[in-house]
Amino acid sequence: MPPKAVCLLSGGLDSATCLALARRDGYETYALSFDYGQRHRIELDAAARVAGALGAKRHIVAKIGLDAFGGSALTAAIDVPKGRLADQMDDGIPVTYVPARNTIFLSFALAWGEVLGTGDIFIGVNALDYSGYPDCRPEFIEAYERMANLATKAGVEGTARVRIHAPLLRLSKAEIVKLGRDLGLPFGLTHSCYDPGPGGRPCGACDSCVLRRKGFEEAGVEDR
Amino acid sequence: MPPKAVCLLSGGLDSATCLALARRDGYETYALSFDYGQRHRIELDAAARVAGALGAKRHIVAKIGLDAFGGSALTAAIDVPKGRLADQMDDGIPVTYVPARNTIFLSFALAWGEVLGTGDIFIGVNALDYSGYPDCRPEFIEAYERMANLATKAGVEGTARVRIHAPLLRLSKAEIVKLGRDLGLPFGLTHSCYDPGPGGRPCGACDSCVLRRKGFEEAGVEDR
Repeated sequence: MPPKAVCLLSGGLDSATCLALARRDGYETYALSFDYGQRHRIELDAAARVAGALGAKRHIVAKIGLDAFGGSALTAAIDVPKGRLADQMDDGIPVTYVPARNTIFLSFALAWGEVLGTGDIFIGVNALDYSGYPDCRPEFIEAYERMANLATKAGVEGTARVRIHAPLLRLSKAEIVKLGRDLGLPFGLTHSCYDPGPGGRPCGACDSCVLRRKGFEEAGVEDR
Repeated sequence: MPPKAVCLLSGGLDSATCLALARRDGYETYALSFDYGQRHRIELDAAARVAGALGAKRHIVAKIGLDAFGGSALTAAIDVPKGRLADQMDDGIPVTYVPARNTIFLSFALAWGEVLGTGDIFIGVNALDYSGYPDCRPEFIEAYERMANLATKAGVEGTARVRIHAPLLRLSKAEIVKLGRDLGLPFGLTHSCYDPGPGGRPCGACDSCVLRRKGFEEAGVEDR
């Protein structure tokens, strides 16, 4: 039997590449997405398409009531910043920051992994083009893994040590694009925009669209 | 303005005592409970009563889809063990274990705290009468706090360092009962039973009932 892995899947380019990598490395993948009151459901549709295309064994969308707390442009009625260049994004943490998001997402992955009997968790965080989120840095991932091995029955008993795989951590967006191409990732199924128009069309101007376009340009790959 | 604290509140004796302590220590309290598909809603009713009686500034019940994963007697159709003596409970981790529960609960507290502008989080975990849960031990709490200070904007920027307060960690159940009495806690509003009968009457035989009775007996305090 192949080893199992829980793969966090937002439906964006990075998490889709990460899921493709987990499959390439021989894992049976369990894709986990979240319905956290985000303004645009289109990203969950993208996650379902990607999970299907990449042969995930299961795909769960966990409902979590993050919107009750407010505090981010992705869940609350705050304007998404537009038209910033990539080198303007690293001064401080953007308003699109969702409080404790990766901490919460990893904790659900940990729970599902324990039920499945695996401690292998994949997350597509990226520290270089990370757009200012503190929970996308290597030191966070390391501290999380250490904590997680003290938190769970399987970690404590040693039957399934927790390993947080963050294979994109030190890659540039262009390197992620090239990796996705080499893995045969259907880029057109993924969704990155923070503020899509009718039918899910990317706005082209939010931080996420700007970083994506820059990555494809630098990689010399077509985004389709 | 008094400092704010997020207080995890299950509606049981320990979390209620912890909330009373936070208030005694001068915090304006924000009580956080979870609807995670537990079989008995009565514990959420108890949490609401306790939050009201102890003057919490707000009480939020966050819905989280833990039941999608299965894996515990508290959320799935597995029998709750009955009639075990307290000294039979420490051989292994019981079936009432909820995967990664405190990790998930603390992560939501972290998110709400960040929105409120506080890193002070109270949790009523207890390592002595802990009934075998790995995420009730001091080393878990310490690792969580360390991780949390790398996870959040406020922790990283130093505007609200995360402190996980676990004031009951090294207390026996009898000491918790005495503390609750000294704080004027209305014990009758709290709920501990894993398998309540009609009208919420405690079964008297599950691990939680056994530990509670033992604590009150040893403290020489009446449970009402």
